[in-house]
Amino acid sequence: MSMADQTAVILLSGGLDSVTLLALARSEGYQCHTLSFAYGQRHTAELAAAANLSTQYGAKSHRVVPIDLGSIGGSALTDHSLSVPVDGVTDQIPITYVPARNTIFLAYALAVCEVLEAQALFVGVNAVDYSGYPDCRPEFIAAFQTLANLATKAGVEGHGVEVKTPLIALSKAEIIKLGVGLGVDYSQTVSCYSADEQGRACGLCDSCRLRKQGFAQAGLVDPTRYQA
Amino acid sequence: MSMADQTAVILLSGGLDSVTLLALARSEGYQCHTLSFAYGQRHTAELAAAANLSTQYGAKSHRVVPIDLGSIGGSALTDHSLSVPVDGVTDQIPITYVPARNTIFLAYALAVCEVLEAQALFVGVNAVDYSGYPDCRPEFIAAFQTLANLATKAGVEGHGVEVKTPLIALSKAEIIKLGVGLGVDYSQTVSCYSADEQGRACGLCDSCRLRKQGFAQAGLVDPTRYQA
Repeated sequence: MSMADQTAVILLSGGLDSVTLLALARSEGYQCHTLSFAYGQRHTAELAAAANLSTQYGAKSHRVVPIDLGSIGGSALTDHSLSVPVDGVTDQIPITYVPARNTIFLAYALAVCEVLEAQALFVGVNAVDYSGYPDCRPEFIAAFQTLANLATKAGVEGHGVEVKTPLIALSKAEIIKLGVGLGVDYSQTVSCYSADEQGRACGLCDSCRLRKQGFAQAGLVDPTRYQA
Repeated sequence: MSMADQTAVILLSGGLDSVTLLALARSEGYQCHTLSFAYGQRHTAELAAAANLSTQYGAKSHRVVPIDLGSIGGSALTDHSLSVPVDGVTDQIPITYVPARNTIFLAYALAVCEVLEAQALFVGVNAVDYSGYPDCRPEFIAAFQTLANLATKAGVEGHGVEVKTPLIALSKAEIIKLGVGLGVDYSQTVSCYSADEQGRACGLCDSCRLRKQGFAQAGLVDPTRYQA
């Protein structure tokens, strides 16, 4: 079976990493179906970017699954009574950590893979600049692959989905260089935790700092649109 | 720490198994928080039963998380254009299988455990009368325990949640005997895939057949309220 006959589900937040992931999967010839989550983000610019980029990169379908993380609580990204830290990246698990978020996202993605009979699930996790999230580590992904093989009809029948994380060992600079090589226009991606309605970045949150540093280390002009 | 200081999250569908589970966790002294899902079930009698039983068994809180499995599609339980089979239990994975359903449920439960800092997560899966679902098997639960230890802040800090499945090796008859011993009134639980608005069972679906057989094998009168 050629790659053109292979179906992939791509977790697409609309940020830098996941757009690079979509471009990569398309360059490998996969039929791509993108999946985004409306989980009570502080802004919807990221979701608008995901929809636009899905069309631009020829995704076969784009799903937005509403998930109610807000009712679970406990994170600055979904609980608007907590403040997003702007003082720089630390070694601690940050307050922007959403409890079990990637586990929930991957569980839904697995369901979509099963319905579409997809061979691959592309996840843009990154263990280098992972900002202290436990569910971005390689051992978490390996455990999810084991679970996926056991959880599904396809897995039981021996043709389960392969969880692919091609960005996991890359630095932000390497991801950016990969994407630029694939023709990605990063001015259209939104990484900021506090982007405004137009998708312009704050420049101060952890995500902005890691992205800014990535462009600097890649030796490339940062095309991010910043506020003020 | 005594059990009275321990917090447990209980996955509570409102059916026979999960109510037995709640009664068991309470009898062990846990502070219990119940969690149900509104996932486009054909009827809501099961959710009403879960809410009533949470109150009756002294749960500290009861959450209903709406999840949009219907948009994913592919199961007779959520896709109303497919028919629920009434011809008896077979060896095949049945059409009532919801893609990755237990994975999604457990992922949300893990998030709630993390927010509540729970020590235990009680899941009423059963590998004996498991009706062909891949995500009710012991190896699936073991894989989820591994994932949970890696996925969460609590797990990383070494005090992760223990996934408890005390019903997994019991027959339906043994579960019923356990529950009756704990004082459970099974007339208030709803197991049927096609229950009516009053929670009365069809008597013909896989779930009804397994339940009916359970009472017969336990040598107990079946208190289930049947339609017509």
